[in-house]
Amino acid sequence: MILTVTLNTALDLTYRVPGLTPHASHRVTEVTERPGGKGINVARVLSALGHEVTVTGFAGGATGRAVRDGLTGLPRLVDALLPVTGATRRTIAVVDEHTGDTTQLNEPGPLITPAEWNAFQEAYEDLLAGGVSAVALCGSLPPGVPVGAYAGLVRAARAAAVPVLLDTSGEPLRRAVAARPDLIKPNADELAELTGSHEPLRATRDARRRGARAVVASLGAEGLLAVTAEGRWRAAPPARVRGNPTGAGDSAVAGLLSGLAERLPWPDRLARAVALSAATVLAPVAGEYDQRAYEELLSRVTVTAEADAA
Amino acid sequence: MILTVTLNTALDLTYRVPGLTPHASHRVTEVTERPGGKGINVARVLSALGHEVTVTGFAGGATGRAVRDGLTGLPRLVDALLPVTGATRRTIAVVDEHTGDTTQLNEPGPLITPAEWNAFQEAYEDLLAGGVSAVALCGSLPPGVPVGAYAGLVRAARAAAVPVLLDTSGEPLRRAVAARPDLIKPNADELAELTGSHEPLRATRDARRRGARAVVASLGAEGLLAVTAEGRWRAAPPARVRGNPTGAGDSAVAGLLSGLAERLPWPDRLARAVALSAATVLAPVAGEYDQRAYEELLSRVTVTAEADAA
Repeated sequence: MILTVTLNTALDLTYRVPGLTPHASHRVTEVTERPGGKGINVARVLSALGHEVTVTGFAGGATGRAVRDGLTGLPRLVDALLPVTGATRRTIAVVDEHTGDTTQLNEPGPLITPAEWNAFQEAYEDLLAGGVSAVALCGSLPPGVPVGAYAGLVRAARAAAVPVLLDTSGEPLRRAVAARPDLIKPNADELAELTGSHEPLRATRDARRRGARAVVASLGAEGLLAVTAEGRWRAAPPARVRGNPTGAGDSAVAGLLSGLAERLPWPDRLARAVALSAATVLAPVAGEYDQRAYEELLSRVTVTAEADAA
Repeated sequence: MILTVTLNTALDLTYRVPGLTPHASHRVTEVTERPGGKGINVARVLSALGHEVTVTGFAGGATGRAVRDGLTGLPRLVDALLPVTGATRRTIAVVDEHTGDTTQLNEPGPLITPAEWNAFQEAYEDLLAGGVSAVALCGSLPPGVPVGAYAGLVRAARAAAVPVLLDTSGEPLRRAVAARPDLIKPNADELAELTGSHEPLRATRDARRRGARAVVASLGAEGLLAVTAEGRWRAAPPARVRGNPTGAGDSAVAGLLSGLAERLPWPDRLARAVALSAATVLAPVAGEYDQRAYEELLSRVTVTAEADAA
């Protein structure tokens, strides 16, 4: 079973409006609503790929109930979210039907009490002891959770001999990298924030020196750059894909985790991650992936080994 | 007991953001959440004024549960909302902290099935038969409810000898006016849309010819213009009040209903409506009213009888 952790789960709303004008009143023409937060998005893709997956983190209030209700229909997915007093946040993507552009409004998330955070750490360790093939720690921290939270969760995974992937940013990333996660998946901005370098190869190597055992940097349309103990690769889609990039990074994480859980060689993991990511950009619904496009793309992703000149 | 009907209840959210920029991503710094829809806002004010009040209409989904949870603490207020399959809509007021301006996003509301609409009509007639001093029909119609809905609800109230106030707009208002409601409370735009006239006195008289027994037009900062079988009055606050006008119209409706239920003479009803409306503009929280300001304003509202030159 693969475990994904989403401490700041969300009820993701998408509003379509004929045109967004500040300080005007708008009738929303279409509302869609689904469970969100990076780890939940990753789990949804893993479930669709055929993996057994357990989601944990926090859920509270009416929005938390809506998140849990939205998870019930997903095959092979177990909801191990912990109830909290505060209400799960909403995120609202306001899509302008004229321009196709999106304006994003993100609530901060509920205040997690020290008792709730302690309860989570215990539940997490119990889950790790129950036969987990890989764990992913994903997204931002809600208020009240200490900034070093992911560092502790990385150490607990390593103590339980469970491979751990980390996908976060800012200070929580910086602290957790020092705890030696097996894999981090920053985008170019997150990598530059961590290392101070805007040159991806240099920054990726620096991130490894800071403690990450492997780094897979997502470079947008250029695909992925992977620097690992086993070698260095670049993986790219066969052609530039156009569409909505929402969730593409989460699909890449799901591809990497899926390949890790199946103990695939690195090039196959990277091909899976790039194909899923591109198939997500191509899908009509934000954050979903197009299964046919995924299968078609999988054999056409180019994965190139690079000699390590370092 | 006063009855308020809100067919399109809402969970009203207010987001504060440092500045709203289309097509950017925003962290919401503060979220407030409360039950909404005009009839619920009116009921909240009536409850605060000391009236027994029952709210009915539809509530469904997680948002509907949040609306009902938000009503439980209000004194003297009975929740008689009918459960429906669809989810109660949200409205989002995005307040720009720099400018103080508000951008409004309103979901359309759940699809009401014919069976749900029939169930409502039966429940409404049962409520009318249970000792109602006045009923208010407030706000927009959710999808699925026929455009002539309010006309039928006005006729049912009249058949039960319950005075009925109507506060809606557009075609639902036009149809319901013909069913001879005791009182309508349009603003200047709604009155112009109904009658084709932008001259308030002319438009108000025309609305009475169309069937409304009395018309109280809300003219923003100028206060109220009342044209009734008993006479014609203008009521205005002692000075121009500055603040947030959200909910001021609903507070005016509550004042009119409160005075109607207590069988006050028209000038006293109008003074109450104007004072509540101004005290709502002055209150720091949108849609609440400032009790001290209300009491202070009540004696200072000017109500002027006008000779009917018609």
